[in-house]
Amino acid sequence: MKLYGYYRSSASYRIRIALNAKRIEWDYVSIRLDKGQQHDPDYLARNPMGFVPMLDTGDAQLVESAAIAEHLELIYPEPPLYPSDPIARAQVREMQHIIGSGVQPLTNLRVLQHLRAEFGQDDEGIDRWCQRWIARGFEAFEARAKERSTDGLFSFGNSLSYADAWLMPQYYNAQRFGLDTSRFTTIESIVSHCSGIDAVAAAHPSRQPDAPP
Amino acid sequence: MKLYGYYRSSASYRIRIALNAKRIEWDYVSIRLDKGQQHDPDYLARNPMGFVPMLDTGDAQLVESAAIAEHLELIYPEPPLYPSDPIARAQVREMQHIIGSGVQPLTNLRVLQHLRAEFGQDDEGIDRWCQRWIARGFEAFEARAKERSTDGLFSFGNSLSYADAWLMPQYYNAQRFGLDTSRFTTIESIVSHCSGIDAVAAAHPSRQPDAPP
Repeated sequence: MKLYGYYRSSASYRIRIALNAKRIEWDYVSIRLDKGQQHDPDYLARNPMGFVPMLDTGDAQLVESAAIAEHLELIYPEPPLYPSDPIARAQVREMQHIIGSGVQPLTNLRVLQHLRAEFGQDDEGIDRWCQRWIARGFEAFEARAKERSTDGLFSFGNSLSYADAWLMPQYYNAQRFGLDTSRFTTIESIVSHCSGIDAVAAAHPSRQPDAPP
Repeated sequence: MKLYGYYRSSASYRIRIALNAKRIEWDYVSIRLDKGQQHDPDYLARNPMGFVPMLDTGDAQLVESAAIAEHLELIYPEPPLYPSDPIARAQVREMQHIIGSGVQPLTNLRVLQHLRAEFGQDDEGIDRWCQRWIARGFEAFEARAKERSTDGLFSFGNSLSYADAWLMPQYYNAQRFGLDTSRFTTIESIVSHCSGIDAVAAAHPSRQPDAPP
């Protein structure tokens, strides 16, 4: 398994958590988004959106983190990152998409670059934009986690799921953009617990080989 | 089955296609986004992002179109809207997410309202913004469809899939925002073919009870 990613790409971080949790061996290939390597014609030919992560399984090169997550669950079912009950499973997927389509696409690098270039936004404007959309998503995620988390240890039920794998990177991004997350008490509790799990901790951006020293 | 949606919400349109294709009986409940009904406390209590669609199955109220799609496939497997081969399935999901996370979140109503209010964008600015992101997504979707469509009739292989259910509403939005789609020849061919399928045609915004006359 070869994961093409970038240390602080939140979608790459999600898949690192999943690979680690499922104890799948993987090699890291850094696609330096800060140097525009995602626009290399070779990379674009295999992945026309030019996003990370891309997972090379040997049989195929898979892109889009939500599609990769489903694939890993199918091929490496243990430990499960989705509950087996169909409705519970739909609820975990909902929590993934609150973040994956409700928040992250708005704070994507290409969008922030466009806001700077076209609407003259400086660092402060960018932070304000990101904080706004992350806060909206976190309000919804918090409401769901409050109903669905067993003891505030995990986002859904009482074990690690894809809802956590999507939450952790978004929380990292929230910090990066200066959002005060203290009012999201359930999220705070989950993040604090999950940060102590080895599979999750090892996926943190600061522990990737392409992170600045 | 009760579908809470809005005629021109593209995520609602996706699920209408899926329900029709799977011949599931459903009733329509209009959430008038133009009147802000998605912000009603009653609706938000059941769906904290305040998005449409929400599918009430009797057992549960499911939100997020990608989660609803997976659930429908599990409970109503015929006709399938995902291929059975795992890699093919991941490829269809990739095509869904090129649109569902790569494009649509950026052209969501709340984002466009924010661009008007905060960055002073008028109709022309909004069209430019939407055209930009839809075109980027369509370039990637076109590249994938060119490789994966059997004869330019469907987005993947030779039958209707969730890739088509995600494409059709995005194409409708592309027209709404004035994007010239003529260079996306595979997409044009697929949309033209799928528009003639009853299940797809009946899902069109113009045929919903809350569409303007």
